[in-house]
Amino acid sequence: MHTTPPKDEQFLADFAQMSANGATPGGGVERQAASEGDILNRRWFSGVLEGFGAEVGYDKIGNQYGLFEFVPGAPYVAVGSHLDSQPLAGRFDGAYGVLAGAHAAARVAAKVESGELAPRFNVAVVNWFNEEGSRFAPSMMGSSVFTSALSLQDARAATDLQGTTVGEAIDGAKWAPLIDAPKVATYAEIHVEQGRGLENNGNQIGLVTATWGAKKFVATVRGEQGHTGSTMMRDRRDALFGASLIIAAVRRLTEEFAEGRLQASVSQLTLEPNSPVTIAREVQFNVDLRSPDSDVLAAARTRLDEIVAAAASEADVEVELSLTHEWALNPYPEAGVELARECAQELGLTHQEIYTVAGHDSTNMKEHYPTVMLFVPSVEGISHNEAEYTTDEDCLAGLALLTRVVEQLAAGKLAPDKR
Amino acid sequence: MHTTPPKDEQFLADFAQMSANGATPGGGVERQAASEGDILNRRWFSGVLEGFGAEVGYDKIGNQYGLFEFVPGAPYVAVGSHLDSQPLAGRFDGAYGVLAGAHAAARVAAKVESGELAPRFNVAVVNWFNEEGSRFAPSMMGSSVFTSALSLQDARAATDLQGTTVGEAIDGAKWAPLIDAPKVATYAEIHVEQGRGLENNGNQIGLVTATWGAKKFVATVRGEQGHTGSTMMRDRRDALFGASLIIAAVRRLTEEFAEGRLQASVSQLTLEPNSPVTIAREVQFNVDLRSPDSDVLAAARTRLDEIVAAAASEADVEVELSLTHEWALNPYPEAGVELARECAQELGLTHQEIYTVAGHDSTNMKEHYPTVMLFVPSVEGISHNEAEYTTDEDCLAGLALLTRVVEQLAAGKLAPDKR
Repeated sequence: MHTTPPKDEQFLADFAQMSANGATPGGGVERQAASEGDILNRRWFSGVLEGFGAEVGYDKIGNQYGLFEFVPGAPYVAVGSHLDSQPLAGRFDGAYGVLAGAHAAARVAAKVESGELAPRFNVAVVNWFNEEGSRFAPSMMGSSVFTSALSLQDARAATDLQGTTVGEAIDGAKWAPLIDAPKVATYAEIHVEQGRGLENNGNQIGLVTATWGAKKFVATVRGEQGHTGSTMMRDRRDALFGASLIIAAVRRLTEEFAEGRLQASVSQLTLEPNSPVTIAREVQFNVDLRSPDSDVLAAARTRLDEIVAAAASEADVEVELSLTHEWALNPYPEAGVELARECAQELGLTHQEIYTVAGHDSTNMKEHYPTVMLFVPSVEGISHNEAEYTTDEDCLAGLALLTRVVEQLAAGKLAPDKR
Repeated sequence: MHTTPPKDEQFLADFAQMSANGATPGGGVERQAASEGDILNRRWFSGVLEGFGAEVGYDKIGNQYGLFEFVPGAPYVAVGSHLDSQPLAGRFDGAYGVLAGAHAAARVAAKVESGELAPRFNVAVVNWFNEEGSRFAPSMMGSSVFTSALSLQDARAATDLQGTTVGEAIDGAKWAPLIDAPKVATYAEIHVEQGRGLENNGNQIGLVTATWGAKKFVATVRGEQGHTGSTMMRDRRDALFGASLIIAAVRRLTEEFAEGRLQASVSQLTLEPNSPVTIAREVQFNVDLRSPDSDVLAAARTRLDEIVAAAASEADVEVELSLTHEWALNPYPEAGVELARECAQELGLTHQEIYTVAGHDSTNMKEHYPTVMLFVPSVEGISHNEAEYTTDEDCLAGLALLTRVVEQLAAGKLAPDKR
């Protein structure tokens, strides 16, 4: 094990090195779950963990762990996020948090070794599998299986648009050795904000107190194939026309609420037969509604049903709307927020409480473990885009705070007295 | 060569047999250009032609010919249509016309052999490659190359959505022998109407006098990737929202004109990155405008520009609209219509003049050769759909008329006096 903790310069150098794995010409990365870029990056990250003295292993859903065992047999403080990305994504989302977790763990390990810290728990760095959900739905897959929100079997059966299953993709990646998932005591995660909240207020750190509520749907529009030229307009049952009415109306729906109260999106769509001369018989797309206010979310859901009914009538099509997942406005544990606040104050970092609109692996973990969720600023809030950016200074401030939080957690903070 | 002409029962049996090639559970066929179903069906059709005594060959763009040579060295009356289909298509579109062409040619050959007909020209049955354009654009590919409207090189370079080129698909099909395309004197084609015109008037035959004008575009909407949850609505540049505004408005545009004056469709669409949690950065789709009236078409084109500008503004995206092909209201040669009318009267078939909304291979051929284009009724006008249907009686009436027309053409009708 290293005796000197890795320095800030080392973190920045490692981050630059990591950003070359699956790099895109536009300055971003493309590392969808179990893709070539993700596989390459995980191999590289395994070397980083081993260089810090951690034991590396993978569980059955492809979560990657770097284990620092200080107290034989004790549970672990888990710290991490996800290295997978969206297509043509930014280089910070998830990846910053995983690398910061590894450096924080290595710093804590150095303190344990030097006798400055008496640990009650071990520390596990975790890189959750397929947080993004762009290649394989649902998102947050690795942490969902870890927390039993999703069965391993269902997760491994999920397919990408080419028909490859998660199971095939993971087996093909040959991640080894296979280990049992570590027993966890507490969890910490740091992530870029993906919004302008911290930037607007000039703060370095966000203490995440809640996740926005969300309702996610799949809509299937069923019409009838016909010739784009010769089928008379009044005879048409055009599934793409029906879909376009819904997509446009879902976006305009956000204007019925005060600014910032409702986010509504359609971003994934497939159509059959997708021919230039044949009217679409079937279109399938997602609908994603999010709000910090349960009443707004309920009202939006009612309006969505009205939008669907109006579109079905105008386009003479059938529309099936299935709720695929939802969560209410979902608070993070107060004790975690308080611990993070104390640590930030101690380090002299400017901070504020903040909501997260996006889901994170901590959204799963906080249901089962005392959890701390931290944000660092995103310039202009740009996310899922190659132009995503967080300054070195903000990255390092976040790393310092995360290190302090993991130190406290390793010492036993937040954990139930009896284990 | 056969001495007895094939009977009506034989035609119906052959049609039923052909409909088993690439058959779908819903009663249709799936025989996209150079797909498994198309390859199987062409092999089967080759046997039919050879059974009638024709020599079978293929040209470099995969057009399939069945040659009946009566007058060594003389040009050919070409008669045919296309055997390829849309995905989940009906079994009549194109295929009826090719099989009717083969039976008509065999009947004419029997008359030549028995001395009842003194031919001036030979007869070639033709199955044009890739009329549909669903797998490889543009449509009417084989007849476009035949008439030099499209270069062989450009046609062979066209790719499907999997990146396979036409050249690779044709070479992979191993159609043989390769022959020079026959020299053509005149052309005849019969097709199902794909509309309700004949059915509404209770007529058996349509004498096609013109093709509707058309303007076809590809629209590319460029926005910006972002997180579907955390990107604030006012910051979004959502390409799919922009596209949906255009698609909905294009359809509603038809209501600004008198019924039946404008057909407008969007039926093919791709989006990037097509992820459930990332706003689309780019959407590409076709826009297909058709009208029997050039003024309507010009007005619709102007309105389309306005629709695009309004959508670009509302969604804060850029839209590029490229005209990919267009044709004005396009008459068929009068002499061909008159010949068909005389033959229909002679056979006692009820008939009317009619426009075609859809393009056909005859749309290409009529620019270079005296051409006859015939329609038989489609029940309810259903087209590009497994439920497409034409009665046996109407199929046989069309075959009888086509036979009479080919006979007249083989005897020298419509051809310039000097060749």
